[in-house]
Amino acid sequence: MLSHPGRLSLAYFLVLIVMGTVLLILPATSRDGQPTDFNTAFFTTVSALSTCGIVIVDTAEYWNLFGQAVILLCIQFGGLGVMTFASLITMTISRRIRVTQQLLAADELGASKLSEVRSVINVVLICTFSVEIIAFSMLFPALLRLNEGQMSQSLWEAIFFAVASYNNAGFTPDTAGLYINSWSVGLPILLSAFVGTLGFPVILNVFQCAHRRQGPKRWNLHTKLTVVTTMSIVTTSLLWFLSVEWNNTTLFHNADLSSKLWHALVAAVMPRSAGFDISWMPHVSEQTKLFMSWIMFIGGGSASTAGGIRVTTFAVLILVCRAAFLRRKDDSVFGKRLHTQTVIMSVAITATCSILIYVASLILLTITNRSLTDIVFECCSAFGLGGYTLGVADPSNPGTLYVLAALMVIGRLGPMTVAYAISKPQPPQAVRYPAESIIVG
Amino acid sequence: MLSHPGRLSLAYFLVLIVMGTVLLILPATSRDGQPTDFNTAFFTTVSALSTCGIVIVDTAEYWNLFGQAVILLCIQFGGLGVMTFASLITMTISRRIRVTQQLLAADELGASKLSEVRSVINVVLICTFSVEIIAFSMLFPALLRLNEGQMSQSLWEAIFFAVASYNNAGFTPDTAGLYINSWSVGLPILLSAFVGTLGFPVILNVFQCAHRRQGPKRWNLHTKLTVVTTMSIVTTSLLWFLSVEWNNTTLFHNADLSSKLWHALVAAVMPRSAGFDISWMPHVSEQTKLFMSWIMFIGGGSASTAGGIRVTTFAVLILVCRAAFLRRKDDSVFGKRLHTQTVIMSVAITATCSILIYVASLILLTITNRSLTDIVFECCSAFGLGGYTLGVADPSNPGTLYVLAALMVIGRLGPMTVAYAISKPQPPQAVRYPAESIIVG
Ligand SMILES: [K+]
Ligand SMILES: [K+]
Repeated sequence: MLSHPGRLSLAYFLVLIVMGTVLLILPATSRDGQPTDFNTAFFTTVSALSTCGIVIVDTAEYWNLFGQAVILLCIQFGGLGVMTFASLITMTISRRIRVTQQLLAADELGASKLSEVRSVINVVLICTFSVEIIAFSMLFPALLRLNEGQMSQSLWEAIFFAVASYNNAGFTPDTAGLYINSWSVGLPILLSAFVGTLGFPVILNVFQCAHRRQGPKRWNLHTKLTVVTTMSIVTTSLLWFLSVEWNNTTLFHNADLSSKLWHALVAAVMPRSAGFDISWMPHVSEQTKLFMSWIMFIGGGSASTAGGIRVTTFAVLILVCRAAFLRRKDDSVFGKRLHTQTVIMSVAITATCSILIYVASLILLTITNRSLTDIVFECCSAFGLGGYTLGVADPSNPGTLYVLAALMVIGRLGPMTVAYAISKPQPPQAVRYPAESIIVG
Repeated sequence: MLSHPGRLSLAYFLVLIVMGTVLLILPATSRDGQPTDFNTAFFTTVSALSTCGIVIVDTAEYWNLFGQAVILLCIQFGGLGVMTFASLITMTISRRIRVTQQLLAADELGASKLSEVRSVINVVLICTFSVEIIAFSMLFPALLRLNEGQMSQSLWEAIFFAVASYNNAGFTPDTAGLYINSWSVGLPILLSAFVGTLGFPVILNVFQCAHRRQGPKRWNLHTKLTVVTTMSIVTTSLLWFLSVEWNNTTLFHNADLSSKLWHALVAAVMPRSAGFDISWMPHVSEQTKLFMSWIMFIGGGSASTAGGIRVTTFAVLILVCRAAFLRRKDDSVFGKRLHTQTVIMSVAITATCSILIYVASLILLTITNRSLTDIVFECCSAFGLGGYTLGVADPSNPGTLYVLAALMVIGRLGPMTVAYAISKPQPPQAVRYPAESIIVG
């Protein structure tokens, strides 16, 4: 099983989906004490496990404390699972490449595997709980003040927000999502969600460099690329909301400047994968829906709690374009060259995901009467784990739920994991074919 | 100039755009004898030169014989120009790669360049006129019968259809486009348009192999890839129209089977770039609009009269996906390996074109009230030179005309040509940076 992290990952999520669905069907998890229908329980479980956050029933109103706890556990196990498996798969792939190159059998390296796996899991756990505890300790006093001293409610909300924000899950334990609009609660959530989108390899590398008193120049290529691309996307997004939606009265409730800036910042950071504060979503313009679809499609960092094709994948594509336009032979950045294998992987991931979104959109166009803007938005939100919804996920039309649930699962696992889980590993090719030129473009 | 085919190509099209626009503004080219407004003349010239075929005034009703002749010359020079320049640019690029590898100065190879250019132009001319003459000789008798013996009208229509079909221009000299529905006229147009989308390198290679009595197995990789991908796309498209639009009464006017099959075949072949018989276009379903957008985005063969990212580019992306999913080191097909440079080029072209369509859609969403389906369709039709219109190109909203005209020009020249025309060639890189792994996906 350990030699097949793709299958292990699929099995892990399947087992958790079944467990979560069964628990949420039980009358004990809903406020009204009635059993929940299968579709709602299944969709909510998938949405929580994939840390997507699209909901069809209100989390605080529909589920009781037990139900919310099930959702929170799904979020936590989903987030931990994906970070661990993403790392294991990366390890396996890079090892397999090395192995193929050296023409060695794959199992020769099996000896040290178990200890490596253990250390990855340890690092993931330490990273996750550190950020969550910091977020909790900032959120609890703020919530206690807002809730006028109600200890148990504040405690539960602080735990929930701390876990949900780092895991970018977008579920909220209070109905209106109003707390987000308060700086004292909103800022810790925003920061924790932002750290979550970077991915634990980046957090680890930044922390290690800081520990060794090394500046950003000594960060590794992955960290540099992730941070620069993330910053570019957030800045673009911030500028977009400040310009295109500046006069949208629904989005920017109050006229004063600081409030507008805060809302634009939330709007710029959250859609990348967090998905909190969804109240203003249906009021944005058509072009903003299309813009946000793109942001959600890119998503966050690799081995992070965010989804999408990942920022590094997008960065590689941009670097390939730059190399081609400047007629360079290599794709280099920050004084380093990219491996051809990295380029191939990025292309395959982006192409597969685009085709996936395209096919899902075609299906949803057929089974609903919604506009393409709404459908593309909802597909990107499901696949990129954005967690926003325009109501295309419709309990009265179960087909939409299953299409979107499939997108969430693939978005969470990543198309490569799914493909690796189903496909048989091929033996190294014995023949290398001669190259021949073709004309493209 | 010859060492910069990109700039030469840009200059060629700019000069022809100016000349065509001036001629079409003149009162002498319109039926009503009034000067035509600049926007209409400019848009029609760009549409004809790029062999796109989106029109905002009816070709047969608005323009007189002189006007139609100007349009026909634009189509002919546009088609010839792009085939020639595409080949010259490919030659330059492949030479530059070779040169860079051998670390030679670029001008050392200048000696034989002029003769090579001359032979490319000869081949393009021979290919073009052969197909056009064959199409003409099939169309003339058929049109003569349909026009009840009117010699001069049939002659003009046969010439026009012969040139417009091979160049995939989609302009038609008769108002209703009804002739397409007759087998005797429709089939030569369909075949000629299909041959046009293959591109002259494919036509040449197939002809050479046939001459040497060699079967398809001896075709070169470019021909094999183009033919197989083209056939797959046409078959998919045919199946789509036969299934999804089977009960669309507007699309399939008559109930009988042979008529349905013929319409589906036209619908499957034409949108790839030809754009004739546009009457049924506004009546297709939303999902068919999205499907056709994809078909038009891919377009036809390289160095052909069709547009889009080209079928070989699309095929390379699919091969990259296959290699990544099967964990193969090389992208191989038909017993040949693809050059890394080919992959880089395909990725850069597809990514740039996608971003282009995305940005154009954002602009059109902002300046019009049309739905995203219609806008994406029209953008893909302009960029992929499909020639269909849903009326997003609106003379009363000149902004739409300029956005679409820009897409046509870039779609015709290809984004690489435009980039090469503007960018300075870089000296071969002296330093090769060390490679570093990053995590993607
Ligand atoms: K989310
Ligand atoms: K066309």
